[in-house]
Amino acid sequence: MERRKFLKGAAIAGAASTLAAPALAQSKIEMVIVSSWPRDFPGLGLPAQRLAERIGELTDGRFDVQYFASGERVGGFDVFDEVASGNAQAYNSADYYWKGKHPGWAPFTAIPFGMTYTEIDAWMKYGGGQELWDELAAEFGLKNLACGNTGVQMGGWFNKEIESADDLKGLKMRIPGLGGDVMAKLGASPISVPGGQIYENLVSGAIDATEWVGPYNDYFMKFYEAAKFYYWPGMHEPGAQIAFGMNKSWWENLSKTDQKILEAACAEANAHTMAETNAFNGEYLNRLINDHGVQLREFNDDVYDAFGEAAAEVIEEAREFDDLSKKIYDAVLEKRAELGAWTELSDTAYVQKRNAVLNQ
Amino acid sequence: MERRKFLKGAAIAGAASTLAAPALAQSKIEMVIVSSWPRDFPGLGLPAQRLAERIGELTDGRFDVQYFASGERVGGFDVFDEVASGNAQAYNSADYYWKGKHPGWAPFTAIPFGMTYTEIDAWMKYGGGQELWDELAAEFGLKNLACGNTGVQMGGWFNKEIESADDLKGLKMRIPGLGGDVMAKLGASPISVPGGQIYENLVSGAIDATEWVGPYNDYFMKFYEAAKFYYWPGMHEPGAQIAFGMNKSWWENLSKTDQKILEAACAEANAHTMAETNAFNGEYLNRLINDHGVQLREFNDDVYDAFGEAAAEVIEEAREFDDLSKKIYDAVLEKRAELGAWTELSDTAYVQKRNAVLNQ
Repeated sequence: MERRKFLKGAAIAGAASTLAAPALAQSKIEMVIVSSWPRDFPGLGLPAQRLAERIGELTDGRFDVQYFASGERVGGFDVFDEVASGNAQAYNSADYYWKGKHPGWAPFTAIPFGMTYTEIDAWMKYGGGQELWDELAAEFGLKNLACGNTGVQMGGWFNKEIESADDLKGLKMRIPGLGGDVMAKLGASPISVPGGQIYENLVSGAIDATEWVGPYNDYFMKFYEAAKFYYWPGMHEPGAQIAFGMNKSWWENLSKTDQKILEAACAEANAHTMAETNAFNGEYLNRLINDHGVQLREFNDDVYDAFGEAAAEVIEEAREFDDLSKKIYDAVLEKRAELGAWTELSDTAYVQKRNAVLNQ
Repeated sequence: MERRKFLKGAAIAGAASTLAAPALAQSKIEMVIVSSWPRDFPGLGLPAQRLAERIGELTDGRFDVQYFASGERVGGFDVFDEVASGNAQAYNSADYYWKGKHPGWAPFTAIPFGMTYTEIDAWMKYGGGQELWDELAAEFGLKNLACGNTGVQMGGWFNKEIESADDLKGLKMRIPGLGGDVMAKLGASPISVPGGQIYENLVSGAIDATEWVGPYNDYFMKFYEAAKFYYWPGMHEPGAQIAFGMNKSWWENLSKTDQKILEAACAEANAHTMAETNAFNGEYLNRLINDHGVQLREFNDDVYDAFGEAAAEVIEEAREFDDLSKKIYDAVLEKRAELGAWTELSDTAYVQKRNAVLNQ
């Protein structure tokens, strides 16, 4: 009885202080986010930092979020293990970096000749994509959500014109992932170089070409100083989805409310990152052309046909890895056909007709 | 002093019950949402109901949300006044319905030859669109956020083929808003009929043609029973943005945290509604063609040129209304050119090339 009385008193005292600062009443949830992006990097790093801050704001500080850019706590490519092991709670990265662990990761970022932003978002949210991502991620102790997209990328920076697939032969090009595998099939030498080292390799001539993202992101990389031909559209990452990968046990111990807050925060970040990229690509493309003499070139049909044939082979090789890989790639190919037919009839047809009328 | 003592006692008693049920510690925020959409209507009503529920979930029930579909509390077109007057806290509707109050409302939903979903989202979130919307809404005591999008719409259902702009003359077509004004300039008779009455008018022959949304939404309207020619792509609503319009004083009295939760909930709903529409349009288009003998037709260049000329006149008339209208429409036209050029180089070019390769 004495003890109960004491506890009762303590409860009332605690409750009284609750009134002064309600946010402190519930215990804080520690959340360490590790990222693959350099600090303050436009288009990728800044949106990741914004999401981290937003989680704190949406929970009124109940989530105590600490964000570490690439290299500040672990290296950019070490974030997967850091979160899977439980050392950190979440990563902000691109899941195709883990294709060496399982080829099924690639389609949750982007594959050559894959889906655009609106298509992958339809697949993820209403076409079974999230469920397949959950199945794969669970095997690695993760729960992942989309938190950004960089849209259709440019085809890359070249120091000579590419007029046929033959012009790709022998080319040393920085292009990672399955896009690099496509280039290899066409006789190029794909090279994987971290973002921070591309510029010096291009200037020194160690590589002949590189892709990165699009005009807004590429502008700050100054590739135009070493390569003047800027090709469109890229086939390798038509709507690269950024991943917010969380430790699965940690996720499952959250309340339903907190899970929903994280879902909403990621969905918001996903749309905002895409909107930011689309908002600035046009403006920065004009700057590249007008201020830096960049020459815009369109990949012709011959080159695209060659890309397409090589991409089909690369996808088939990834698909054959195991049953889960088959399941994921089969779903991607089916949805690409179904959603892609609708995109062509709606957005693509409309924008073509509208722009043709307006530019008369 | 007696009164202060009493209050102090009441505070502690209240705080003690707080411990048992933390969610009740903070006073509940009443939120009545009135909508322009029929209950359970796919593509519009269901997403609006989902958003209402989500706000309750994200706040752990702190927001006590009551949702009323069209006609359940006020008529679908009375929601604006209901919220502006403070009788309700928010509406889920389309702001071009209020173009009679001010023509500046139209571009925040859609205008003929206007922006697509990804373009309007870039404009809203990073191109100054939200700031202009805030400026207009403030004049009516509102604060509005995007909470859905129906994407590029189909051109509509016709009981004869449209092979030139001349075929539109004398046509009685259900098409509201500025799209209807475009049709009127081309000699058609635009008629405004609420969604629930379109079918009977089409079957009886009171109207010759109608537009609604796209295959997923249109499927449930059964228009195929009365009109077999289904045209693409629509010029009248290329990315109709759904609005969550809140009473401005109510919004301003919310905490920063609650404002951010509503922003995140709306951004999430916006992306989910678009994803749902895109996910199902392809499937339902196939059903319309295969199960109901619908014949798909593409508007030809002659018809699109005529649409374009008429749309330019309609936009200019809306623009001239007052200074704010000029400011809004000038921004829309500038962003349409800038963002539209990027869309053509990225999504449009890529989807065309990808689909051409895949369909060989």
